Amino acid sequence: MRENRLRTLFADKKLALNGWVSMGNSLLAEVLSHSGYDAVTVDLQHGLFSIEAAVSILQAISTTGAVPLARCSENSLGEINKLLDAGAYGIICPLVNTREDAEQFVRACHYSPRGGRSYGPARGVLYGGADYFTHANRTVLTLAMIETKLGLANAEAIMSVPDLDGIFIGPADLAIDMGLAPDNWKDKQVTDAIQSLVALGAQLGKYIGIFAGTVEMAQRMKEYGLDMVAPGTDIQLLRAEAQARIAALR
Amino acid sequence: MRENRLRTLFADKKLALNGWVSMGNSLLAEVLSHSGYDAVTVDLQHGLFSIEAAVSILQAISTTGAVPLARCSENSLGEINKLLDAGAYGIICPLVNTREDAEQFVRACHYSPRGGRSYGPARGVLYGGADYFTHANRTVLTLAMIETKLGLANAEAIMSVPDLDGIFIGPADLAIDMGLAPDNWKDKQVTDAIQSLVALGAQLGKYIGIFAGTVEMAQRMKEYGLDMVAPGTDIQLLRAEAQARIAALR
Amino acid sequence: MRENRLRTLFADKKLALNGWVSMGNSLLAEVLSHSGYDAVTVDLQHGLFSIEAAVSILQAISTTGAVPLARCSENSLGEINKLLDAGAYGIICPLVNTREDAEQFVRACHYSPRGGRSYGPARGVLYGGADYFTHANRTVLTLAMIETKLGLANAEAIMSVPDLDGIFIGPADLAIDMGLAPDNWKDKQVTDAIQSLVALGAQLGKYIGIFAGTVEMAQRMKEYGLDMVAPGTDIQLLRAEAQARIAALR
Amino acid sequence: MRENRLRTLFADKKLALNGWVSMGNSLLAEVLSHSGYDAVTVDLQHGLFSIEAAVSILQAISTTGAVPLARCSENSLGEINKLLDAGAYGIICPLVNTREDAEQFVRACHYSPRGGRSYGPARGVLYGGADYFTHANRTVLTLAMIETKLGLANAEAIMSVPDLDGIFIGPADLAIDMGLAPDNWKDKQVTDAIQSLVALGAQLGKYIGIFAGTVEMAQRMKEYGLDMVAPGTDIQLLRAEAQARIAALR
Amino acid sequence: MRENRLRTLFADKKLALNGWVSMGNSLLAEVLSHSGYDAVTVDLQHGLFSIEAAVSILQAISTTGAVPLARCSENSLGEINKLLDAGAYGIICPLVNTREDAEQFVRACHYSPRGGRSYGPARGVLYGGADYFTHANRTVLTLAMIETKLGLANAEAIMSVPDLDGIFIGPADLAIDMGLAPDNWKDKQVTDAIQSLVALGAQLGKYIGIFAGTVEMAQRMKEYGLDMVAPGTDIQLLRAEAQARIAALR
Amino acid sequence: MRENRLRTLFADKKLALNGWVSMGNSLLAEVLSHSGYDAVTVDLQHGLFSIEAAVSILQAISTTGAVPLARCSENSLGEINKLLDAGAYGIICPLVNTREDAEQFVRACHYSPRGGRSYGPARGVLYGGADYFTHANRTVLTLAMIETKLGLANAEAIMSVPDLDGIFIGPADLAIDMGLAPDNWKDKQVTDAIQSLVALGAQLGKYIGIFAGTVEMAQRMKEYGLDMVAPGTDIQLLRAEAQARIAALR
Repeated sequence: MRENRLRTLFADKKLALNGWVSMGNSLLAEVLSHSGYDAVTVDLQHGLFSIEAAVSILQAISTTGAVPLARCSENSLGEINKLLDAGAYGIICPLVNTREDAEQFVRACHYSPRGGRSYGPARGVLYGGADYFTHANRTVLTLAMIETKLGLANAEAIMSVPDLDGIFIGPADLAIDMGLAPDNWKDKQVTDAIQSLVALGAQLGKYIGIFAGTVEMAQRMKEYGLDMVAPGTDIQLLRAEAQARIAALR
Repeated sequence: MRENRLRTLFADKKLALNGWVSMGNSLLAEVLSHSGYDAVTVDLQHGLFSIEAAVSILQAISTTGAVPLARCSENSLGEINKLLDAGAYGIICPLVNTREDAEQFVRACHYSPRGGRSYGPARGVLYGGADYFTHANRTVLTLAMIETKLGLANAEAIMSVPDLDGIFIGPADLAIDMGLAPDNWKDKQVTDAIQSLVALGAQLGKYIGIFAGTVEMAQRMKEYGLDMVAPGTDIQLLRAEAQARIAALR
Repeated sequence: MRENRLRTLFADKKLALNGWVSMGNSLLAEVLSHSGYDAVTVDLQHGLFSIEAAVSILQAISTTGAVPLARCSENSLGEINKLLDAGAYGIICPLVNTREDAEQFVRACHYSPRGGRSYGPARGVLYGGADYFTHANRTVLTLAMIETKLGLANAEAIMSVPDLDGIFIGPADLAIDMGLAPDNWKDKQVTDAIQSLVALGAQLGKYIGIFAGTVEMAQRMKEYGLDMVAPGTDIQLLRAEAQARIAALR
Repeated sequence: MRENRLRTLFADKKLALNGWVSMGNSLLAEVLSHSGYDAVTVDLQHGLFSIEAAVSILQAISTTGAVPLARCSENSLGEINKLLDAGAYGIICPLVNTREDAEQFVRACHYSPRGGRSYGPARGVLYGGADYFTHANRTVLTLAMIETKLGLANAEAIMSVPDLDGIFIGPADLAIDMGLAPDNWKDKQVTDAIQSLVALGAQLGKYIGIFAGTVEMAQRMKEYGLDMVAPGTDIQLLRAEAQARIAALR
Repeated sequence: MRENRLRTLFADKKLALNGWVSMGNSLLAEVLSHSGYDAVTVDLQHGLFSIEAAVSILQAISTTGAVPLARCSENSLGEINKLLDAGAYGIICPLVNTREDAEQFVRACHYSPRGGRSYGPARGVLYGGADYFTHANRTVLTLAMIETKLGLANAEAIMSVPDLDGIFIGPADLAIDMGLAPDNWKDKQVTDAIQSLVALGAQLGKYIGIFAGTVEMAQRMKEYGLDMVAPGTDIQLLRAEAQARIAALR
Repeated sequence: MRENRLRTLFADKKLALNGWVSMGNSLLAEVLSHSGYDAVTVDLQHGLFSIEAAVSILQAISTTGAVPLARCSENSLGEINKLLDAGAYGIICPLVNTREDAEQFVRACHYSPRGGRSYGPARGVLYGGADYFTHANRTVLTLAMIETKLGLANAEAIMSVPDLDGIFIGPADLAIDMGLAPDNWKDKQVTDAIQSLVALGAQLGKYIGIFAGTVEMAQRMKEYGLDMVAPGTDIQLLRAEAQARIAALR
């Protein structure tokens, strides 16, 4: 089975950069995947599209060496199974607030006996190889989002779930739940939380990723020792550059 | 943030007319939205399409002054969040039978601390404005469907949920659950139920909407004092006019 | 091969009623096809969609007994061949202004030796049957649009093309080319033109169809002896009924 | 209402052959439906598409006499209702492990008083007929998948649910849950399980279907007395023939 | 009819900034249209999509004040008519090399007696208004691309066509035809050509637009006195920002 | 720029096997591309889809080593340019009957000075590489279809066009034009024509490809010394295997 290069990067303590596809267009995904990211995530949660677009986006990513990830819209075995069948090499699951949430999530990502994933990896065998079934359980990455105060309080319990590979921090939702504006990641409550999660990850041997809307934030996250950073969505990139060019020309 | 004109209409005690899109075509939605409705609902429950079509339909509605609403396919945070992210200014949730159902529904529609909506309003900020986050909780309408005998029995408990703005009556399902044919809205059981819900709404300060497949029924609902009426789906409109023209020409 | 029931209707001097799909949605097409039309036309000219939608619309029509027709966007062998491959049982070609236009059109609709249609009827054999190739040339209907003053002047030359089955009048474009508003079909110039084309059709043994935006116009066309009338597009039907219902409820 | 021919086949003890659509293309579905299957299933579980494609696939199947079935992606009332609204004449539900799962599933498939299906059969009335509501509850087939050791242990309880018509065995998932490779259907554990389920079906008056990836397996299943066999997915058919032709030509 | 604000800008000698959609996604188009451009062009020539996507993109643009333009894939009446029917307020036509090309192009854009456009403006009347037909001929902009040495040689003849509003320069194709690399716009041959066309436009009263892949080039074009500049495609914006962020973080 | 492996295969006198995608589904294309073909052709002529589907199919092919080819629907610069922009590494053009047709075709495939291709290779640079422009003219394959008696008569003139790489024989259309059934490739008229074209190719240094619906025909073509054979479309493969399995089980 094709290896999951993110695991190698993480093992080598190299920061993985993660592109983010929230518009349902496969050419856009291919453009991003050719830009130099280590991984590209197709976002089914805030991305306004469904599985058809996700499949074509995963195909587009697969024309490059970037590792294809997907964020599911909710902790649902049905949807997670489709994304894995479609060749995603890792799942980011939103709103994991308890150990039970995390256990349910990782069960959905693994075949028996480690979980209850149903068999039918149509694109999995194309992208991964004919021996997909044999290696899938240890290839696919499972990343639980911690993005609420409750999730934060339960972080150790969540990160102690054996088959969970790591967490992915949602700083906007975390800020909101702390009573802050969504982009207020510089608030000490938020940065403390992030740093404590990074420390916990180091202690428990789990990977820690995060979303960062700006380069400034992404650089700070790099300094904090995150394993993976997603420096902006496709929409943020597009708008930033469009507005910069328009401003330069007015 | 762009105001929700339905709230103004309701406050002014004016009947709101609601167009209904159950075919997944954005040109159709634009044609309907230009026909004079106060709001247009994209129906993810009995409409046979998913979020991609819903987004393009919401875009089509947004070319006009009609307020964009959406009916979700079920009481699911994941789907409701996508519809709100896509710029829906109100959600109609089917099969709300208990107070717990209603609470779960309104939590999905609001950001913390009023709920657990996740942040990422890609189209919300385009349609609503840059200050979307600040005002979204009090702009978005939450309408729970009462369409079973159980929901009817729990109507007061449901309508007492603080963040719920109102209900939307499903007369066909209600009739079926009463042992009647789905179009038998004239049966006294059904009309009594509708009128009691209208009275309860007046008492509890909640808006009451309804679906009405024919003009005759819509007129009766207007007399009953409903706040919002959806006088037929796109399919019903199309079929009615096609059959009338064919009959006239045979 | 499945017969073309329009040919039978025309032979029996029965008025054929033709539904008109200009929105690219297959459920809409299926609803219309179940409404009682003798034929349903998928409009690639003013319909804002392309061949994918046309295929699914032709599939939808094929679930009923209505004869599937298509209007091409221009007199192009490539597009006409695709529509026939997709199972259309007749082609309406816009803007046929000269005998050469008509000859080019009918050549695109027939296999050698009667024309230059290329072989590959993927849906043709599914809808028509395994003997499609043997009978296609005499089953498929060819209807040339006369909708300019030039086309009108050349009507006899056009209608004398042997493999052309008939014409389809475009009254809006004809009116515009006569210096009138597009909906001014009652002007004597237009009605005279229509009646002269009907007379010419009777003389030359060709079928005469027309588009009619309202029931009133369709009834007049029936009186004039047209073979086929399309009484309104899907958009016209939808808007008429929506506006009527809204007016009734305001 | 149009009859469900599978019920007749089952009553006549004739083996039903079931085509399997897991690629979201309606022309492909129409090609398969014309190939001679008794039923064709649109697979929303491992098929990488959503409801729009499912609708167009169901339309394609409806151009033939094959009975349209659907496999939902999970035991969800919202999705099952959409598939039934779209004209599916039977639902195959994955991962039914307990009697409670089975009861939830059949409730989603039936209108009150037998269940909680919501009313709005847009394509149901087109495919089934105007009297759809009256007959739907006894026309639509409900088939629960048994594909885990837990489901197997609970088979009698599951099959005793009154409104459940039968089961559909998932041999790959069952094999995995037994510690075998997914294609190891010849293992005695699996064949014993299949035969015991067939015996239980005969005893309890329930239909037993199964998926079979190869002709060899399908033939064995026929010998075992299954009521319905799905001899390979569209992907399996395509790949088998492509590889055979390539091998012959190298 | 809704006015064409580009005509006002041009009359006021204000530089119009033009967004460029070459990926077929309507959310992307809406994001761009909200970024501050005066117009947004949907590109059917090098954009890898067809009319369905173009319609949804034009709908997205119509939710804002940006003027919707379209570039057709070739000088084809059929395609140009569809784009105008879909609500485009201007057409950019590639590869206009001769006066005959220009005459054919403008005929396709206007109703009789100024041209041969066919009537059926489904979205035109929605976006433009009910009086669309009366004003369309003088509202819609016609911009011919000059992008070959032959076109350059014929520039005066092309720009003398009465109903042509202006030209749009294709600097990459022009450079290639001059034997240069496509991005070699700084070569004197190219800048001389651009400046001569600007001068010719001033003399003949025609608008001059251009595509400019970088801000540097766009600024130079502004200095040259162009009326409209398209400062980069969506793909260029996205890639530029993605690569900049990745470079900053490595 | 990524090399065109077909050129190497042809130079090495190895038979190239060509998969054929005529259903507009990218997963299907990916399955075929993983089956062992040397090239896979996306067919815009008899394939019932348009450029959006073609792009996603080309992306799917690009996940493998198979060379992506496209057949255009007609000899149109606009469409051919889109297919090349989308990353096709070769174009098969139908109905090339004269030297003028061939010259028009090859001009559409090459940048100036060898042709009039317009610059904008959005996917070309992703698939081919950043130096796409420099090498595209000598990388892209141009294959003209000879499939009429006229084309056959003009074969030497067609094949003498310098920038034409070879021809692709359409045996079904050729048979029809000779007065035979489309599948009558064994007729001496057809086999003589094929063999004479192979001989002419050897003499003029041009590649000769052909479509072959069955393995038997493909093997004969291999014996004749063809350079490339397309042994059946996706539809033919699917139907053959479906019918074989059904026959085995009845």
